[in-house]
Amino acid sequence: MSTLTLRHVAIDTYKENVAYLHRDCKLYHSEGFQALNKIEIHTHDGDASIIAVLNVVDDDCITTPDELGLCEQAFEQLGGKAGIPVRIAHAKVPGSLKAVHRKIAGDRLGFEDYRAIARDIAANRYSKIEIAAFLVACTEIGLERDEVLHLTRSMIETGKRLDWGEPLVVDKHCIGGIPGNRTTMLVVPIVAAHGMLVPKTSSRAITSPAGTADTMEVLSQVELSPDQLHKIVRAERACLAWGGTAGLAPVDDILISVERPLLMDSPGQLVASILAKKLAAGATHLIIDIPIGPTAKVRSRSSALVLRKLFEYVGDHLGLNLEVVLTDGRQPVGRGIGPVLEARDVMQVLENDPLAPIDLREKSLQLAGRILEFDPDVRGGRGYALARDILESGRALTKMQAIIDAQGRNSGPPGVGRFCHEVAATESGHITAIDNRQLAHIARLAGAPMDKGAGVDLHKKLGDSVEVGELLYCIYAEFPADFEFARDSAQQNSGFTTGDSYVDKVP
Amino acid sequence: MSTLTLRHVAIDTYKENVAYLHRDCKLYHSEGFQALNKIEIHTHDGDASIIAVLNVVDDDCITTPDELGLCEQAFEQLGGKAGIPVRIAHAKVPGSLKAVHRKIAGDRLGFEDYRAIARDIAANRYSKIEIAAFLVACTEIGLERDEVLHLTRSMIETGKRLDWGEPLVVDKHCIGGIPGNRTTMLVVPIVAAHGMLVPKTSSRAITSPAGTADTMEVLSQVELSPDQLHKIVRAERACLAWGGTAGLAPVDDILISVERPLLMDSPGQLVASILAKKLAAGATHLIIDIPIGPTAKVRSRSSALVLRKLFEYVGDHLGLNLEVVLTDGRQPVGRGIGPVLEARDVMQVLENDPLAPIDLREKSLQLAGRILEFDPDVRGGRGYALARDILESGRALTKMQAIIDAQGRNSGPPGVGRFCHEVAATESGHITAIDNRQLAHIARLAGAPMDKGAGVDLHKKLGDSVEVGELLYCIYAEFPADFEFARDSAQQNSGFTTGDSYVDKVP
Repeated sequence: MSTLTLRHVAIDTYKENVAYLHRDCKLYHSEGFQALNKIEIHTHDGDASIIAVLNVVDDDCITTPDELGLCEQAFEQLGGKAGIPVRIAHAKVPGSLKAVHRKIAGDRLGFEDYRAIARDIAANRYSKIEIAAFLVACTEIGLERDEVLHLTRSMIETGKRLDWGEPLVVDKHCIGGIPGNRTTMLVVPIVAAHGMLVPKTSSRAITSPAGTADTMEVLSQVELSPDQLHKIVRAERACLAWGGTAGLAPVDDILISVERPLLMDSPGQLVASILAKKLAAGATHLIIDIPIGPTAKVRSRSSALVLRKLFEYVGDHLGLNLEVVLTDGRQPVGRGIGPVLEARDVMQVLENDPLAPIDLREKSLQLAGRILEFDPDVRGGRGYALARDILESGRALTKMQAIIDAQGRNSGPPGVGRFCHEVAATESGHITAIDNRQLAHIARLAGAPMDKGAGVDLHKKLGDSVEVGELLYCIYAEFPADFEFARDSAQQNSGFTTGDSYVDKVP
Repeated sequence: MSTLTLRHVAIDTYKENVAYLHRDCKLYHSEGFQALNKIEIHTHDGDASIIAVLNVVDDDCITTPDELGLCEQAFEQLGGKAGIPVRIAHAKVPGSLKAVHRKIAGDRLGFEDYRAIARDIAANRYSKIEIAAFLVACTEIGLERDEVLHLTRSMIETGKRLDWGEPLVVDKHCIGGIPGNRTTMLVVPIVAAHGMLVPKTSSRAITSPAGTADTMEVLSQVELSPDQLHKIVRAERACLAWGGTAGLAPVDDILISVERPLLMDSPGQLVASILAKKLAAGATHLIIDIPIGPTAKVRSRSSALVLRKLFEYVGDHLGLNLEVVLTDGRQPVGRGIGPVLEARDVMQVLENDPLAPIDLREKSLQLAGRILEFDPDVRGGRGYALARDILESGRALTKMQAIIDAQGRNSGPPGVGRFCHEVAATESGHITAIDNRQLAHIARLAGAPMDKGAGVDLHKKLGDSVEVGELLYCIYAEFPADFEFARDSAQQNSGFTTGDSYVDKVP
């Protein structure tokens, strides 16, 4: 068989293997590859092989007729050696795609099916459209809770799994959707100050105005090597870093790369995704925060309960000590929305500043209290008071400073954005609703999370009384264009609703 | 707003718009495009805009930090002018994706929904994963017959529509799956010899060992410009060409580019796809051939009837005169499988050669007879006899020769492949089954349709008696590697089943 020379094509295709073959390549014509969507590529020694979607190139600068080009991730997967001889073949359909077709037809799948699917996805044998087919089939028919368990287990099995060598490794996770909800940066120092092991890694914001990693980055470095991360965790019992999940449940990352652009978010996928990542990261005890509210991800107590049961079922069967807390998701938590503003809120709470936002403080104490009660030596019901003691005594602040120093303190953190626009009330009365989505949207338009100082600073919250012309919130931005976008959006819809009276009814 | 310079990136991404942005591009960072899967690209004058999936480039040879690269099809769509200034923006989710999510949730969609979806797909606002989501949702929940009608109508509306200016424009279509089934090359000259207008364009084989276009190409040119095609049709009342469907129901091509790699083939999509293409091509009268057999696409008479009703319902509502014929799909039609071998069969029938395969001749006469009865002057039930007269009198052959000459006769058509392997019976008895799929597979491995002379030549058909060592079929190939693949496959599974006795029972 003829061979081609492997070439690195410096294109990042976002979690899809793409191969580039020149239109004049002899193999392209003689082997009928032009009718195909996918090919299999083998190194000449037969040691490695990958599957890739085929793109056809008409420019020798990208790939010559004697070469096979691979996008960055595919090139790495095949071993990352340019110039070696490779063979190409028609890709076989991944064996587990039959199970996907059975799911499309309405069947319930078993553990062997999910394991086969996860293995094929982990080996990059699925193209993005095949992944989309799997996800839609799971959403449409729905997953039985046993199927969610199988999927979770399969996602863990197909990746690395960390072992911290301790019986109690705690973590927390919020299912998201509430701007300003930076409880992690308070919970972690509180429970670490108590001595619990909490190796916390967080994501950056994808569709929200700030993630924990973005906000922590205002104060310290967050991009740490696995070695640094382990050293810091051993020394401080905690970290507040970005990522660190490379190789953990890699199937989850691949599924998310398709779920996100599809705006899909089914309960089964959500639970499997969160629990697979946490278990692979070595967590033994986990608190899940599910905020409920009309503009939160979960809108009613009943759907929150369904989700809670699913978390509990899968967690229990995988030996994870898991507690689900349903929280108030009717409005943003704290005052700031955006990295710098949220970091300010967090530090105010840690410093016991009388101006600190009460709701952020209270929610963090509640969650930290629940985690502290995972400690067999903490009496049931005493967690909250213990968390409050740790916070008020300044021990949480000391721990936070130690974590910041260990990760690498940022000298002179950035301030708020140069441009400021005040949004004022147009009617008098009480604030009866605050739209999480619209405020997140305005903060993102203003530049958050890319511009650390951009965002929204709230001056009124639910139930507050307000007069015409009184300040509702400030928008901060770094750049004029962003500033205008955000201001225009706030003018169209401030996100605030005012009424005659407000009845406080926690959902 | 800053602008980028448009650049043509010579990559053919197979029906997906891809944009290439350099990782060091200022806009990529400041605008937060790295979190996105899709962007919208506008020409600076605001005249044109397209949506594309974003790939990130680390090589100035492909795209510099000041440029925006577009793959071939996206570049054409934006007007095809390199060097012009363009602006990029976050792509909005296509509006009709909400309808797709409703379909995923189990809703029935209305005409407005399908029209919106078809318009967004035609405007390339859907990425492939969004298309996959739509297709799976349609397959899983199923389409009501009204939904198939809406989808068909929407696909026609979003493309060009040919008008031949005559009240009777005939066409035929087989839903496929039967090797050697080259009836089109007989039906077209027969009905054209009667004076009917039959502007027949066919596809090349995608997953089968030969399409009508591949087989016709043995005899004449098939790649004709729209102008040539129209001139030939006006002169000869017929053509037997490739493609010619550019711009006709373009949504169908886009859907197929995702359906095919997913191996999806739901009845609703099948009917909408075929009827949209035929109506857009100006057909007024259409015969649909549905072969039934254990290794055909449709395996039972009852599922064939369901499909027939669906074709009739949609056809009737769109003003198409449509007849569905259920045919015997238990084995390949004719003797040859592969372009040269099938062309030989066709010419033997046209030349009234006593060695011509009877089944191919009979089936073609049946189908041609049904089409001839679309002529108001042909008495009901007389179509078959008329078709036979046209064939036996040599008028069909004369018409075929005229079509071949008009399209451009190939001098010295290629012969069968250099390598020949004879597959012999290993038991005596009667042939009780022939596996369409395995024989198609062997023919493809041998090199068909790329190597015109490659394929399989059958010496036994269903019900024939056979002795051990007697010839079942020959495999022909051009190249040694293909030859070995095909031979190995035939050794593992000849595709023939032999039994003591055979009962002829048409499905």
